[in-house]
Formats: sequence, structure tokens, C-alpha cells
Amino acid sequence: MAQISGGRRGRPGHDVQAVLDAAVELFNERGYDATSMDDVARRLEITKSSIYHHVRGKQELLRMAIDHALDGLDDAMTQVRGLDEATALERLETLIRLSVLVLAGRLPYVTLLLRVRGNSEVELDALTRRRAFDHEVTALVKAAQTEGGIRPDIDPATAARVLFGMVNSLAEWYSPARGNAGELATILTTVAFDGLSIRD
Amino acid sequence: MAQISGGRRGRPGHDVQAVLDAAVELFNERGYDATSMDDVARRLEITKSSIYHHVRGKQELLRMAIDHALDGLDDAMTQVRGLDEATALERLETLIRLSVLVLAGRLPYVTLLLRVRGNSEVELDALTRRRAFDHEVTALVKAAQTEGGIRPDIDPATAARVLFGMVNSLAEWYSPARGNAGELATILTTVAFDGLSIRD
Repeated sequence: MAQISGGRRGRPGHDVQAVLDAAVELFNERGYDATSMDDVARRLEITKSSIYHHVRGKQELLRMAIDHALDGLDDAMTQVRGLDEATALERLETLIRLSVLVLAGRLPYVTLLLRVRGNSEVELDALTRRRAFDHEVTALVKAAQTEGGIRPDIDPATAARVLFGMVNSLAEWYSPARGNAGELATILTTVAFDGLSIRD
Repeated sequence: MAQISGGRRGRPGHDVQAVLDAAVELFNERGYDATSMDDVARRLEITKSSIYHHVRGKQELLRMAIDHALDGLDDAMTQVRGLDEATALERLETLIRLSVLVLAGRLPYVTLLLRVRGNSEVELDALTRRRAFDHEVTALVKAAQTEGGIRPDIDPATAARVLFGMVNSLAEWYSPARGNAGELATILTTVAFDGLSIRD
């Protein structure tokens, strides 16, 4: 039996991370409702009580998992907010690049986040955080349009959705075997801002 | 009680379409496994036997629904194949435009298709058809690169995935209330091929 370490607060310890990883894997495979704490314990070959020693229950696992995905995206936004000298277009490009890296690095977590539909308080909180993030992306697009960096004829909210539709679609097809996340970030940023074609 | 008309072969009749629409709605809401033929009958306020008069069962409904989505995409590809005078880039742009229209027009059907994971013969057949479609998109990208219409430094399979990642993301956020499908097709095609930015 493996040992579980790490506390309830702050950054999860190494073994709490292992529990989270296993739970997210199962939530993605079978769905949250169809997964029991017994399933999580069985996957890790540990006892259920050694999980409950550190985690209150399934819903807390869901919250920690979703927060891990959202924290990554919020950190990216915080970095972008700090780029004082950059134009809005450059910030937006940096945000897309960083978001691709978050997705590639936390793929199962973001996959879980993207399936959230608001069926519980945890899920509703996640949707609220996603909406706040989307609004900030839309504001960035608007600012870039005002500065003359982005086509003025596209509705900013639609542009934000198209951008993140592209980024989020990675959850459907990306695997580390499909290439380096940094290169992928470059491809996505290039397509989104300069387009696939080479006419001018 | 409503009456059901239309046969098993060819285009579904008006009322078979109503059964399909209700089934797809339920599959998307609750999942295929969690939906029973009783649920479909209840949603339509008809008897289960009046459904079975025209449809063999739940799996046939799933197949018809998925085929409806895939037929739309295949028809788009057939139209594009017929554009004898067009460059590969023009064909690809037309394919993206037509695919957006298919998605917007058959949204719940494509949403269902995109959730298919290969859990039954029907789903495996759908994945095979999707793969064939993806290969043809990749071939189009390659041809456009050879003709000098598309950036040569992007892996064609990755470009195809990014393009359809963008298109398929509509299933997550598009609603007819969010604007005209034709305008949306223009926005997506513009972003994908010419990019959001206006620098040069």
C-alpha cells in the first residue's frame, strides 16, 4: 500500500497529487457520477481510508481537479496583465501561447474542466470562473481592436470564443506523442493571428 | 398522441425526424447509456410502440443521428471535390465554410458525433468515417502547401486538426441566437486563413 502525504491546504503534496491524477483519469473515462471513491482507491491500490485521511470526498477531488486547471489559466492571465510595455495584441498572443502550454501540461485536468456543465455547486463555481476569464479575453480583443492590432469588423466576444475554441480543441486531439507543446503553441498562435495562408 | 410516418430507408420522414430530434436531445442531455426508449416516447408524448413501428431500437436511433451529422460533412467534401477549377486553398476555404454551415444547421447531431468514443459498432463506424474525412482534409492541406497557398512549415495533419478544432468548437458555444451562421462561417474562414491581426 502506498502512503499518502500532503495536507488539505495549499499546494497538494506529491501523493495527494497521485490521488487527484487517478481520480481525474477515472472521471474522464467513466464520468464523475459513475466513479466511486472505491474506484479511485482500487486504481491506486491503496485503501479508501488512506484517501479520506487527506481528502474529504469525491466532491473535494472534483473541486481540486477543476481548480488545478483554472489556476493554470488564471496564472497565464496574471502574467499577461503584468506585461506593461506590450500592446493588447501582444498580450493576447502571449495569452494564447501560455494557454496552449497550460492545456498541454494539464491535459486531463482541462479536459475535465471543459466537460463541466454546472450540475453542482463545484461545477457552477467553475463556470463562474470560466466566464470571468472569457470576459477578460473579450476585453483584450476589444483593446487590440481599439489599438488597430486586430480586425475591427469581428465581434470581440466571437473572436474570443473562436480563439479559445481553437485552444480548447487540443483537449480532443493533443497527446505529447503528437509533438512538443512549445511548437504547438507557435503553430496555434501563428494560425490564429496571421492565418494559415501565405497570400497577401 | 402524435402519429409517426416515414420508412426505415432513405431520408427519414417528418415524424421519424421528430423521434430522432428528441432522441438526440436526450442523448446529449443525459448520455446515450442513461437514455431509454421510454424516455424518448415520454419526451414526444407518444407510445413506445409507435416508435418501434419505424425504428428498430435505440442503437438504430444512434446510427441515424450520427449518420445525419456525418452525411452533412461528407456532402460538403463531395461539393469541394467537384470544384475542378479551384486551387487547393480555395477548396479548403470552401470546406471550412460549408462545415460551419453543417455544424450550425445540425448542431445537436454534430455535438453527439463529437462525443462518440468508440463504445459500440455504431460508434466505431463513426470514428472510421471521421478518420477518412480527416485524412482527406490533411491531403487538401498538403496539396495547398505544394501549390504555395499555405505555410509550408506546418505539419499538414496538425493544420487539419487545428482547422477542425476551431470548427468543431462551435458545438460548445454556438447558438442561433449568437448570430447568423453565414457570418460566422465568414469569421472562422477569415481567422483560419488570414488571421485575426491586421499587421503585415
